[in-house]
Amino acid sequence: MSKQESGAVDPGGAVQGCCPGLLRTPLGEDESVELARVFKALGDPVRLRLLSLIASRDGGEVCVCDLTPAFDLAQPTISHHLKLLREAGLIASQRRGTWVYYRLLPESTDRLARILTRAAAPEAAGA
Amino acid sequence: MSKQESGAVDPGGAVQGCCPGLLRTPLGEDESVELARVFKALGDPVRLRLLSLIASRDGGEVCVCDLTPAFDLAQPTISHHLKLLREAGLIASQRRGTWVYYRLLPESTDRLARILTRAAAPEAAGA
Repeated sequence: MSKQESGAVDPGGAVQGCCPGLLRTPLGEDESVELARVFKALGDPVRLRLLSLIASRDGGEVCVCDLTPAFDLAQPTISHHLKLLREAGLIASQRRGTWVYYRLLPESTDRLARILTRAAAPEAAGA
Repeated sequence: MSKQESGAVDPGGAVQGCCPGLLRTPLGEDESVELARVFKALGDPVRLRLLSLIASRDGGEVCVCDLTPAFDLAQPTISHHLKLLREAGLIASQRRGTWVYYRLLPESTDRLARILTRAAAPEAAGA
């Protein structure tokens, strides 16, 4: 458990500003908690399929009435999964008349994509 | 629960070949199960920080002896989190002498970044 081989890792203090990239600098504790909540929302097959159905729909919006028939699940279960995606900031909803409509919040998925993208040339950066 | 407003979503059959993009075509059931497992592995603050420490380390490899002191957690807990990251295909490990060394499997995070990236011009694609 000693540090003799290559020095202890300092996990704090490296995350500054927006979106430094998970793979470039050690993630701070606060950001890891916030980010884990978003990834956890994606960590379920039904929620992934819901997000994918919403995101890939032409027009950018899907009625909940069109999402439910795509799953062999009860409406309250679908609604619960949609709520978790909404609370994670991945989708937004709007009620119009009888139905609720869902749309992707692309800035959220853009952020995740950016966070998971490697630096172009890490070796050259410090030279 | 009816489909009258915009037609039912067909979630099947749209996923072909490698990595069609979660946001471009509806995800199939099998891929959603596999992908959810990877996102679930990322859905924990300690695992995110471990992955970030491993990925951002110069030289690309971190001794477990350097990871443990960065957390206020017991060695078996850290090992358990590392095992889940490994089982999700995000990191690889190699024992050398006393210590186990971990490195990022960048093709995994590249894949996630690609899956979360929007199509450049979705409207123009079908014209």
